[in-house]
Amino acid sequence: MKGISILGSTGSIGRNTLRVVEHLQGQFKVVALGAGSNVDELAAQIDQFKPELVAVRDEPAAGELASKLRDHKPEIVTGEAGLVAVATHPQAEAVVSATVGAVGFVPTLRAIEAGKRVALANKETLVMAGELMTAAAARSGAEILPVDSEHNAIHQCLRGESLKEVNRLILTASGGPFRTKSKAEIESATVEEALDHPNWKMGDKISIDSATLMNKGLEVIEAKWLFGFDADRISVVVHPQSVIHSMVELVDGSIIAQLGVTDMKHAIQYALTYPERFENCLPALDFTKTSQLTFEEPDIDRFPCLALAYRALCSGGTMPAVLNAANEVAVAEFLAGKIRLVDIPKIITAVMDAHDPTAVTDLDSILAADAWARSAAGLALASGAGA
Amino acid sequence: MKGISILGSTGSIGRNTLRVVEHLQGQFKVVALGAGSNVDELAAQIDQFKPELVAVRDEPAAGELASKLRDHKPEIVTGEAGLVAVATHPQAEAVVSATVGAVGFVPTLRAIEAGKRVALANKETLVMAGELMTAAAARSGAEILPVDSEHNAIHQCLRGESLKEVNRLILTASGGPFRTKSKAEIESATVEEALDHPNWKMGDKISIDSATLMNKGLEVIEAKWLFGFDADRISVVVHPQSVIHSMVELVDGSIIAQLGVTDMKHAIQYALTYPERFENCLPALDFTKTSQLTFEEPDIDRFPCLALAYRALCSGGTMPAVLNAANEVAVAEFLAGKIRLVDIPKIITAVMDAHDPTAVTDLDSILAADAWARSAAGLALASGAGA
Repeated sequence: MKGISILGSTGSIGRNTLRVVEHLQGQFKVVALGAGSNVDELAAQIDQFKPELVAVRDEPAAGELASKLRDHKPEIVTGEAGLVAVATHPQAEAVVSATVGAVGFVPTLRAIEAGKRVALANKETLVMAGELMTAAAARSGAEILPVDSEHNAIHQCLRGESLKEVNRLILTASGGPFRTKSKAEIESATVEEALDHPNWKMGDKISIDSATLMNKGLEVIEAKWLFGFDADRISVVVHPQSVIHSMVELVDGSIIAQLGVTDMKHAIQYALTYPERFENCLPALDFTKTSQLTFEEPDIDRFPCLALAYRALCSGGTMPAVLNAANEVAVAEFLAGKIRLVDIPKIITAVMDAHDPTAVTDLDSILAADAWARSAAGLALASGAGA
Repeated sequence: MKGISILGSTGSIGRNTLRVVEHLQGQFKVVALGAGSNVDELAAQIDQFKPELVAVRDEPAAGELASKLRDHKPEIVTGEAGLVAVATHPQAEAVVSATVGAVGFVPTLRAIEAGKRVALANKETLVMAGELMTAAAARSGAEILPVDSEHNAIHQCLRGESLKEVNRLILTASGGPFRTKSKAEIESATVEEALDHPNWKMGDKISIDSATLMNKGLEVIEAKWLFGFDADRISVVVHPQSVIHSMVELVDGSIIAQLGVTDMKHAIQYALTYPERFENCLPALDFTKTSQLTFEEPDIDRFPCLALAYRALCSGGTMPAVLNAANEVAVAEFLAGKIRLVDIPKIITAVMDAHDPTAVTDLDSILAADAWARSAAGLALASGAGA
């Protein structure tokens, strides 16, 4: 049995990872779990999977968790150091990195430095520090396997292909809940409408990012680091049915696509078992029930976040980390009902305009840019940049 | 420069192969050409590509060709022995097998026995004698690379995959010119209507096979031999736009598809240059101009030829060769205006019903079954089995 750790075990990806572990009976042993403050669910996971180590957000959460444990009593650790301990557990061969936002950044880097296979769902990690992460992976021999359905699809399409024979990567985008809405309708969008993704059930942050197309923008940046392609060789096409999860165009014009049902368990299982494939517990895609597949150009006018991500990638250095931090702050404000959806790109633009990107030299330069951008986003909010 | 021979150089695939050779300037040298009786076109090809050897159907064609040659005067040979000489030319590393029907059978087998890479467009070769051909390839080390767009797509989808992790192959079918027609309309179909394929420009025989879906049936049999899958693991889905050229379903439910423009030059170039890919002279597939992709179950009631092919594959032995021969006779009769399109499956059924399949032990057993079926088809026609 291969040991695995999960960063973000009570989130959407974390819970699906545990379903995959159940399904692949006897292949994986959960050795460590990291969560935030959902101690009820974490306690139930501990009861079922019996990890040796668990991390929670802070001491109060640790105390609450301890009071809910039944027979199995793992070591409980807290904070970033706790997540790092989960990510680098000596018995973990693979680490599923599925925390939301920047909190997974340092633990994921440590897992990569420790040479683990990292099944990466935390896209901010590569957005903030793709250069550091890929350099660390090259040094340690760690494999980074993408769990995002799009990058997972591209990973599958690239099997057996030579990277120098690839023209471009084509990320598909569902277009989100506002694909067919007018600018006026998007301006008056509620949180509930923005969370109502047509094809995927996901966490709140990523659902909002899907509604603004920032999710696709972050994926463009992620793709650059995962596969080594520059921005001009990463395209986005809107494909509302999300049946084609992404594609690769070869130099001879051939396009290889990966299709499947819209369930994250597929990509999680693939990332854990690669290069082997195993049967899974999902229904097969039935083509005769797939009415039609359509494609559209993304509309940068209604969805400016996508253009902001390309801008950040082209600026390089610390700019993607700044984009990511400003977006996290703005999305949290939107989810809290404090700003409109259309204010999100305005706040990010204000922060990016104020940033003079510098080279990414180490962890500190990224964390400093992240902190600066969060502060700048706060100022932009206070000054009404989003209004 | 790699030497290549082309069997069927004046046909659709042959002419496209020469366009690919032109495009891949300096990579391939045409050493031998085989054609039927289109000596005008063959003379022009000789003038441009300067092969050392050419084969034509018979002595009168050879004489006519000789009278049309200008500066370059290759050796001229005739008949099946001539095609075999082209297929086994010592300087040919690759042989494009693109004759129509059973005439390419023996020359293709000889090319395989000689260890050549065979770019195979002549599907009857594998339909008639898949077992012999694949056994010969295993002995000689010859690679068989499919030029049919569907099998070429599957070959591309299988790159980097393990065959034991494949659930099934999914061949896409355009549905042909009668996809949306009623049984009554198909009964009164003219030759001209049957030749009017919606997506591909091809030779007459394959166009009629596409109209009856026999082409897809032959491809199912071909797929069995190319990739080693039984009939129950080869599916057909009607996909009228022919953008997805075929697919592979893996054990984990993932589907890998190959998409591209509908131009045979892509598959020809792939088969000649594999495992390398090179830029080609075709326009890229533009997703935003691809209005929609749709899928349907094939309708065995209106297109019984598809079911006949599955029946022949399941019967095994000499039955696929009998199916193929009866189909060739019936299609020729239809093209000559002597029977209706819907008589084709009736004649094939009558011949298959009369055949007691035996094991394929050698070339002679197949040629005997082929000859028997042609004769039986003639009898069926004379007795009005098609009426």
